[in-house]
Amino acid sequence: MLTPEHMQQTVERYLTGINDGDMEAVVSLFANDALVEDPVGTEPKSGDEILKFYTKAFAGGAKVELTGPVRISAKAAAFPFRGEITRVDGPTIIVEVIDIFEFDEAGKVVKMTAHLGPTNITVKDG
Amino acid sequence: MLTPEHMQQTVERYLTGINDGDMEAVVSLFANDALVEDPVGTEPKSGDEILKFYTKAFAGGAKVELTGPVRISAKAAAFPFRGEITRVDGPTIIVEVIDIFEFDEAGKVVKMTAHLGPTNITVKDG
Repeated sequence: MLTPEHMQQTVERYLTGINDGDMEAVVSLFANDALVEDPVGTEPKSGDEILKFYTKAFAGGAKVELTGPVRISAKAAAFPFRGEITRVDGPTIIVEVIDIFEFDEAGKVVKMTAHLGPTNITVKDG
Repeated sequence: MLTPEHMQQTVERYLTGINDGDMEAVVSLFANDALVEDPVGTEPKSGDEILKFYTKAFAGGAKVELTGPVRISAKAAAFPFRGEITRVDGPTIIVEVIDIFEFDEAGKVVKMTAHLGPTNITVKDG
């Protein structure tokens, strides 16, 4: 059964996985048929593209942290977070994001949607 | 053309409308064919049901405020907010919500989705 506790823990494991650079752990939270739409409005990624996407996005290292409570409804979790992401051969950027996780009955994430845009990105000096 | 500034202003007008108890102003932000899914996972409301929904939800008065930046992508805005809502004949409750607004090209909200659940609701003493 899908519980609020499980959804909260999945969000925490997701952020910990990113902070640890453990993209296998991140991708293990998704269902086999999951879709990742990041940012919202772009073509969703699926299958092997998901691990490639996370590996590329966070190859330079990242620190992510919640900036408010996870909003947990019957089958979804929405959470605000801040990321400090170092691009390979690029600057460090600060991003303010809201992710939505939709869950299946087995507790896996079947859809991730990331809300962010240019107004939510700051390039860090130094 | 749909701009980030317009989406930001729409979110601010929405929250101001709720704080002012002006549900006509709130509903004026929506397209004629808009859907309101609040909370996510329930049957979306449309047409005259939308004004009735807002009027009932906030009949006792409400104070809402952003708790972080509005995440603005190409055609959507996602924002975290806290509401202190007084129910008619009931207690005051504090709710932590993330709303998603999807926009049409005319700049009206065509879909509102509210993410919250029991873990995001606190009943206030007194």
